[in-house]
Amino acid sequence: MSAENDHVDGVAATPQIEEENRVEIFDTTLRDGEQSPGISLNAAEKVEIASQLARLGVDVIEAGFPIASPGDFEAVQMIARNVEGPVITGLARTHTADIEAAWGAVKDSPRPRIHTFISTSDIHITHQLQTDREDVKGQAKAAVAHARSFCENVEFSPMDATRADVEFTAEVCAIAIAEGAGVINIPDTVGYTTPDEYTRYLERLYELIPELRDVTLSVHCHDDLGLAVANSFAGVLAGARQVECAINGLGERAGNCSLEEIVMLLRTRRVDHGLDTTVNTRELARTSRMVSRATGYVVQPNKAIIGRNAFAHESGIHQDGVLKERTTYEIMDARDVGLESNSIVLGKHSGRHALRDALEQLGFKVEGNALNQAFQRFKEIADKKKQVTALDLEAIVSDELREAGQKYELAWFEVESGSRRAPVARAGVTMPNGEEATGEYSGDGPFDSVFGAIQAAVDVECDLRSFEVGAVTGGEDALGEVTVQVRAHGRLANGQGVSTDTIEAAARAYVRALSNALEGAAVREAEAATAEHAAAPMTPGP
Amino acid sequence: MSAENDHVDGVAATPQIEEENRVEIFDTTLRDGEQSPGISLNAAEKVEIASQLARLGVDVIEAGFPIASPGDFEAVQMIARNVEGPVITGLARTHTADIEAAWGAVKDSPRPRIHTFISTSDIHITHQLQTDREDVKGQAKAAVAHARSFCENVEFSPMDATRADVEFTAEVCAIAIAEGAGVINIPDTVGYTTPDEYTRYLERLYELIPELRDVTLSVHCHDDLGLAVANSFAGVLAGARQVECAINGLGERAGNCSLEEIVMLLRTRRVDHGLDTTVNTRELARTSRMVSRATGYVVQPNKAIIGRNAFAHESGIHQDGVLKERTTYEIMDARDVGLESNSIVLGKHSGRHALRDALEQLGFKVEGNALNQAFQRFKEIADKKKQVTALDLEAIVSDELREAGQKYELAWFEVESGSRRAPVARAGVTMPNGEEATGEYSGDGPFDSVFGAIQAAVDVECDLRSFEVGAVTGGEDALGEVTVQVRAHGRLANGQGVSTDTIEAAARAYVRALSNALEGAAVREAEAATAEHAAAPMTPGP
Repeated sequence: MSAENDHVDGVAATPQIEEENRVEIFDTTLRDGEQSPGISLNAAEKVEIASQLARLGVDVIEAGFPIASPGDFEAVQMIARNVEGPVITGLARTHTADIEAAWGAVKDSPRPRIHTFISTSDIHITHQLQTDREDVKGQAKAAVAHARSFCENVEFSPMDATRADVEFTAEVCAIAIAEGAGVINIPDTVGYTTPDEYTRYLERLYELIPELRDVTLSVHCHDDLGLAVANSFAGVLAGARQVECAINGLGERAGNCSLEEIVMLLRTRRVDHGLDTTVNTRELARTSRMVSRATGYVVQPNKAIIGRNAFAHESGIHQDGVLKERTTYEIMDARDVGLESNSIVLGKHSGRHALRDALEQLGFKVEGNALNQAFQRFKEIADKKKQVTALDLEAIVSDELREAGQKYELAWFEVESGSRRAPVARAGVTMPNGEEATGEYSGDGPFDSVFGAIQAAVDVECDLRSFEVGAVTGGEDALGEVTVQVRAHGRLANGQGVSTDTIEAAARAYVRALSNALEGAAVREAEAATAEHAAAPMTPGP
Repeated sequence: MSAENDHVDGVAATPQIEEENRVEIFDTTLRDGEQSPGISLNAAEKVEIASQLARLGVDVIEAGFPIASPGDFEAVQMIARNVEGPVITGLARTHTADIEAAWGAVKDSPRPRIHTFISTSDIHITHQLQTDREDVKGQAKAAVAHARSFCENVEFSPMDATRADVEFTAEVCAIAIAEGAGVINIPDTVGYTTPDEYTRYLERLYELIPELRDVTLSVHCHDDLGLAVANSFAGVLAGARQVECAINGLGERAGNCSLEEIVMLLRTRRVDHGLDTTVNTRELARTSRMVSRATGYVVQPNKAIIGRNAFAHESGIHQDGVLKERTTYEIMDARDVGLESNSIVLGKHSGRHALRDALEQLGFKVEGNALNQAFQRFKEIADKKKQVTALDLEAIVSDELREAGQKYELAWFEVESGSRRAPVARAGVTMPNGEEATGEYSGDGPFDSVFGAIQAAVDVECDLRSFEVGAVTGGEDALGEVTVQVRAHGRLANGQGVSTDTIEAAARAYVRALSNALEGAAVREAEAATAEHAAAPMTPGP
């Protein structure tokens, strides 16, 4: 940092902060974020994201909702077993089965937590729980006690608290604290509150529950009115020391508080408020790209902190004028959020070792067969592209990771198209039994035709819901990255593919979306057979 | 509204509100928004957006920065002459030439305003203006006086106010008020402030300048730390009665306060604060789509209010469960932001009259030759699609509007591609002299090949910077919509195209981006020849 820049003093990759002023970051990308329509991450992808969250330095990872499905349970368990550093938590309603599932999933983590919740708003108690306040108190008490019988670290959330009676919510929270909850989280479940109102609500809770000072107060805000970050910040100023948030602001509806925004807000204004997190902000951009790629949720160019235009630079290269007097128009440095830290460049003559080293620098441990596959893919792409950059490598690796465990694989395709003829495509797909099925289709344009040919090959009814194409880096020889969302077997599923040929990327993405939809449908059928799921429709959680 | 829903009482398409509680909406999509990298709207597009803003019911349209270029001047003038209802304003530095250009551009509006600004922060005064405080006071005084000599309605902004000394800023504002400014706007130019701090700043200004009570206080907040909406809301609670904002939150870097968010925040919480705007919120979704399409700036799915997932519904159709107990998880009704108001559906047998009527319902007045062109395009698409919906019509019309005044036109193209062969494309482009040039290219995949063939045909150096593909509606026969950003002639430019064939949409988008880049380059060369522009590099404005 240059001395002239008085607005970013205190910005550093690994800040020191006194414990009482440290705000813990609770990431719920894999729970609240993953509940967004069409996101279907498999366990390997969730572990990959959780590992990156650990590298980013978050304090708590909410890895999923273990009772929701066997797939959710397995993913939380894999994260608990494989990701070290952060506390790993799983969400649970107050039901006994939920709490036992959550404990079963997180217990192998060195730092397990159970997060249980029940609504305290009358609108939820009446319409959703169809019970009364006394019962809610009883359920909260029993759930926290049950969770504490397994696990020292228990968090309790009164769902929809900001629309609930504050006195009743305080009563319920006091019960949870008495039973041993160490974290009390006050969710603005529907994104309705405002900074002043939230501040008053939390201050009132402190008055009503003196023992709230002895536990960690947490905030969980949704962005329906665009106030999630401001409300979370108000909560921190009112005494909260945990913020629940998600990468890229993912989550139900308009999403949760954006992790990157609250982290950079605390960091940038640290000198004024004395509060900070210990997040390594230089990992923010990469984490954002990884999550965007895996979920198929694009980040808009004007998104704060990690949008393409969030800094007054183009494609990661500061314009000279901005660098010279950066503070004139910038309050943060793009390097501090990791937007231009990587200078890794490989070419067509780079070998397997160079690739492995570069991947390691990027935080990917790729060995054995996975390395061979990645290397083969790298060579194919290096043959077509002059330079393979860090961003390209990220895309290639996450493309390859998606390959594991797919029911179908794209074998080949061809397409002819033009403004003066009907397009036609043919495709070959390797089926689960190892045999190749082929299809042919003439649709509206080459993508539609390729998708139709794949559908004809696998012989599955499938609606295309959305289709996004992006370039990984700039330039004519950029890698194309395609995300599609399909509805098949009554289920929304995403697929993603990367290639220098955008139609190939699209074909790969489509085949994967189909695989994911069928896998999801199979899981759901298995679940429908169990009484718990048939009887209790899931609530979205805080 | 059902009586059960106690959170959306007061939500109505045309609310009544007492004048002292009415918050005016100042839209700067066409000024601050249009300054985002790669956005290059022509005058016709700006008029189209301004007309839609008038339909939305905004109070003020900042139509551009007239001194910035002859193109900006012309667009502001066309809007002033053609768009009725809102106040039309143009931005001006304190320079005499700026103010005269702004007046020249807005004077034909029935409700003209001049908006002039100068920085009051020491960092801007020293580094950007390279002057001192006394000079700033003198410039502000002269500029407001000069503006008032032309126009009764003058707004003054002390740029970077939130990083400036509040006493000095108050002095400058008092001078502006004494000279006749009727609106004082306090910009958080770099997106640095927080709700509490901004509130204190504005309260202090009221203390320091008693006469601030006699004029309209305005807020202008940037979203660098994710607080633009919260800061604007804090400003309104502190007494501001004008909010400067932009559709989709566009603007420099992370953008401005999002218009749709602040409007829906005020509307949804109206019962608590008694404040509201007179915006017709049912036009929000359409305005958002129009701006996204014209600028090429996508809206992320989890964007509040107008993102694809902002409501717990899929593709505009409420899920049954949500409708039954909507208030359990939703605080707003998707219909109130216009997400599902349109049921217009045309088919291949629909005639010219049906098309014109449908377009009129959508707010497009299309007659004569434009109607013929739109009808021809409609028939081509209706031949391929079973149903043409309101969303499709919007896309077709905005695609056609883009055709006007293009230097190049795509005549035809053809492409062959596959995983087992090198792709090859040929394209024909109608050149400005009316002759057809052809090109052939074999690149990485079909898009790259088509783009290469077009480049070969027009013989212009051109880098592809970004490339976005979306579907206008769901389903296999959806219209594909492509936006590309290119760099040609040292200038970033966007182009957009719509077709059932995505490659055709991409080819159209690419040809238009090239046209826009060359047009922009020509305008800039003309500007470089004038002393004003050569001598004074533009400042971004508040």
